[in-house]
Amino acid sequence: MPKENSSLRFDEIFSNGNVATSLRIRNVIYSKQSKIQRIDIFETADLGRIFALDGTIMLNERWEFTYHEMITHVPMFSHSNPKDVLVIGGGDGGVVREVLKHPSVEKVDLVEIDPDVIEACKNYLPSTASKLSDPRVAIYNEDGKSFVMRKDTEYDVIIVDSTDPYKGAGESLFTEEFYTACRNALKEDGIFSAEAENPVYDGKEMEKCFREMNKAFPMVKPYTAFVPMYPSGFWVFAYASKNVLPTIKDGKSRLKKLIGSLFYYNFKIHEASFVAPTFLEKLLEY
Amino acid sequence: MPKENSSLRFDEIFSNGNVATSLRIRNVIYSKQSKIQRIDIFETADLGRIFALDGTIMLNERWEFTYHEMITHVPMFSHSNPKDVLVIGGGDGGVVREVLKHPSVEKVDLVEIDPDVIEACKNYLPSTASKLSDPRVAIYNEDGKSFVMRKDTEYDVIIVDSTDPYKGAGESLFTEEFYTACRNALKEDGIFSAEAENPVYDGKEMEKCFREMNKAFPMVKPYTAFVPMYPSGFWVFAYASKNVLPTIKDGKSRLKKLIGSLFYYNFKIHEASFVAPTFLEKLLEY
Repeated sequence: MPKENSSLRFDEIFSNGNVATSLRIRNVIYSKQSKIQRIDIFETADLGRIFALDGTIMLNERWEFTYHEMITHVPMFSHSNPKDVLVIGGGDGGVVREVLKHPSVEKVDLVEIDPDVIEACKNYLPSTASKLSDPRVAIYNEDGKSFVMRKDTEYDVIIVDSTDPYKGAGESLFTEEFYTACRNALKEDGIFSAEAENPVYDGKEMEKCFREMNKAFPMVKPYTAFVPMYPSGFWVFAYASKNVLPTIKDGKSRLKKLIGSLFYYNFKIHEASFVAPTFLEKLLEY
Repeated sequence: MPKENSSLRFDEIFSNGNVATSLRIRNVIYSKQSKIQRIDIFETADLGRIFALDGTIMLNERWEFTYHEMITHVPMFSHSNPKDVLVIGGGDGGVVREVLKHPSVEKVDLVEIDPDVIEACKNYLPSTASKLSDPRVAIYNEDGKSFVMRKDTEYDVIIVDSTDPYKGAGESLFTEEFYTACRNALKEDGIFSAEAENPVYDGKEMEKCFREMNKAFPMVKPYTAFVPMYPSGFWVFAYASKNVLPTIKDGKSRLKKLIGSLFYYNFKIHEASFVAPTFLEKLLEY
């Protein structure tokens, strides 16, 4: 068959099959059925590499910065001096890369259930995964929920960078039990953030996420960011704490050390991200 | 062929064919090659009807409110008493519907080049087009640029709801000449808004739009909104004026009359929409 008559495309299908995003693929870089899930890394024409789990895109290299910066720097700058950080999920290393931009950080525990994800990303996604070898990072390949249930008053910041709630490994990470364990694993002034889906195609999952989180944390606030690599591009995150507002702490002096390494996050965006369109305010009744 | 083995899909293709959004179609409602462009209206499974020109989606009924509210109410509330409004493009009627929510409005001129668009939307998209029959609305089927070049100091607000700049009818609406004509058609305290593409797949077109606009207007400011119905969902709008800042004028008393009819726009969103991620700030150097 002549080459110009064939093409390889990756279709991410959502909304019960009614909508799909279709990407032209240059090369298959890595493809494996691990014990837990299907792992794919593809080279695209103009979005860099994409990394998918069970057919759901986790990131593309061109636009992952919007997601990773916003899930990370909002809680990090809301804490006055984050030293001990826990990342649940996030085996691609994107969150860890952002966390380590803060010089106050002494220890990052990364709990990624699937060792093959770590291996694949270290080998084929250095743009996000290269900091996984930093000496401050400890990697645990186990279920996030069982890990955090053993912890007590240990972390300044906990970030949950999970897969979707309705399938596979991420499911247990959207429950009251898990959120309560996270609250207990935080120090008194600790801060929690998590991806919370989108209101366009996953409104029910988003609502459930906030409902469960509200049972566990006294303070829960949604914030949003443009995440063009995900369905609808309209991404919601959850900020939670025992009593700490998402105001920027000691920002000026700390920001200096990060200047030039941030491409989405800035202090005005931090504040603006907590402002929601009317329909979203009503959906989450906050 | 058994029915379950076939399906109709509409693929909107962008980024030089590297990316597409694919939608399952229930029915073809209307499909016509007009003198100017191909017009399609389809029934989807869960997004209501979609309306496309030359294969580019203009709206879906489920999510058009985010776009139409933000392109309209930001300029309308930035003006203290908008009476005379010009809408260029926007034959689907979505902008006109939003404009007419403001009781101060006495006259709306709608300049839609293609009479078949008006006809199709009146017949098959009543959710946006029903207000096109309002007695305050005058419809002109001619080129937006030549229409506005005849006007002088006539309008309080001008809204450009055009197709993309790189194809078909919208092309002349992204030039210095057109923007200068719009400035001259505005009263001294008049306000201009326009859709300005997205930074993800159309960054160059977005930059050009602002570059040309800056030649014509003393004050140009980008603002953003989540528009999940368009590629990337990350939509940029341009606000421009001779000297009027995009602050809300006499908001409280005016908002009362619109409460319950706004689903995205609120005053906090108005302000937050002018805050940009760092990479966008740099791209537009504002």
